[in-house]
Amino acid sequence: MEQDLDYTAAIVIIGNEILSGRTQDTNTAYIAQKLVARGITLGEVRVIPDIGGKIIETVNTLRGMYSYVFTTGGIGPTHDDITAENIAKAFGVALPANEEAMQILRDYYGPENLTQARARMARIPEGAALIPNPVSGAPGFRMDNVYVFAGVPKIMQAMLDHVLPSLHQGAPVESVSVSCQIPESVMADDVGALQERYLGCIDVGSYPQFLPVAGGVGLSIVLRSVDKEALRKAAQELVVCIRTRGIDPQVTFSFDE
Amino acid sequence: MEQDLDYTAAIVIIGNEILSGRTQDTNTAYIAQKLVARGITLGEVRVIPDIGGKIIETVNTLRGMYSYVFTTGGIGPTHDDITAENIAKAFGVALPANEEAMQILRDYYGPENLTQARARMARIPEGAALIPNPVSGAPGFRMDNVYVFAGVPKIMQAMLDHVLPSLHQGAPVESVSVSCQIPESVMADDVGALQERYLGCIDVGSYPQFLPVAGGVGLSIVLRSVDKEALRKAAQELVVCIRTRGIDPQVTFSFDE
Repeated sequence: MEQDLDYTAAIVIIGNEILSGRTQDTNTAYIAQKLVARGITLGEVRVIPDIGGKIIETVNTLRGMYSYVFTTGGIGPTHDDITAENIAKAFGVALPANEEAMQILRDYYGPENLTQARARMARIPEGAALIPNPVSGAPGFRMDNVYVFAGVPKIMQAMLDHVLPSLHQGAPVESVSVSCQIPESVMADDVGALQERYLGCIDVGSYPQFLPVAGGVGLSIVLRSVDKEALRKAAQELVVCIRTRGIDPQVTFSFDE
Repeated sequence: MEQDLDYTAAIVIIGNEILSGRTQDTNTAYIAQKLVARGITLGEVRVIPDIGGKIIETVNTLRGMYSYVFTTGGIGPTHDDITAENIAKAFGVALPANEEAMQILRDYYGPENLTQARARMARIPEGAALIPNPVSGAPGFRMDNVYVFAGVPKIMQAMLDHVLPSLHQGAPVESVSVSCQIPESVMADDVGALQERYLGCIDVGSYPQFLPVAGGVGLSIVLRSVDKEALRKAAQELVVCIRTRGIDPQVTFSFDE
């Protein structure tokens, strides 16, 4: 059974604070997990600086390559929030004050407190649909297949959760993780043979860890597929193979065994 | 004073486990911080899957754009470790068993334990220089301006620390962080004006937080520059500006005040 790879996505993390090492990005992992559950394959992530030309080039490259592009960051009220204007440029459309967004900001701040800086957050590319922000008012937006989210994780998560039900749904990719304390290089041939047997059906990944005990090594072998039956069978084969080495692996399914 | 942007870098994170959300990438932040300290500007990061063509295309694009490219992941003993062979393809060179690498592996495992899977880790693109791995033997390598590191953070860090002294050194970018509990949108105009005054000298970033107390908002304004004197002066101006609002900000310098 071929895996359903019809729906794909890319993430664009916009922010100097990630590239300077000041901030640890956590948005990628959150979005990735939600996409996996929706059966959408995350094809790549790019972290880029707050530079207009780079935003335009990156978004225009990726929106032609993937079903969905999600951007995070740069939609706040300050001078370094330049995502909206560059998305507008990428699509060749104007960036007017959006009346619906203005109303949201008036309601959120009170009309008397809608300063010029705050009103900046109502500038939305022409033709885009707003994405609500239950945390701090100022909305994100969707322009064609490009979803523009805030960078603050709590807001980004609310925006993603809001749009998720509207995305195409692929067959969800399930996984089985088989962990044991055997060096990766000892298991390599058997794991490679397993991948060969299930080529095109299961994606087999091998991930070593170094445990905080002297000489401690750990290994997680992760099987991923849309085919639960194949996953059960392959996991069983792997468990048998590890038990022949006198070791009982830990097995975790992402679905009901 | 113009910032010294002569030395630039890109990171390529190779690994399905990041794109599936299974593993939180921490290598980016570690490399980013070390590069900042060395005065090298991290221009972008790409996270890509374990797909040969994607590795080749990404590395060949970025190595022409940046002074340095650092890759992490995919140099272990298993079937999904395909970085070395695709770096060789990207450069159009062969991938022979490297005698120096073979000796390292023989020393590490003992000659009698150098299995075929382990020997796979001695396949190094022709013309590359090895990068030692003090944690688990199998070396990384440098091919021209492309540095190929392991994905396991502990090993990656040792490899980066080893090569850092050999990289060109730019003027280190210092920073001042000014934090206060004022909404970002209230400070936006003043922060924008500060950026205007120091354009081309200081990079001003504005980063809101949402604190875990009812209605709690936090704001960090981060000034970054190679010019310490300008940073001191600008930070002082910002502190005065915040104090006029009756709030005493917290100020953190990356260098001796």
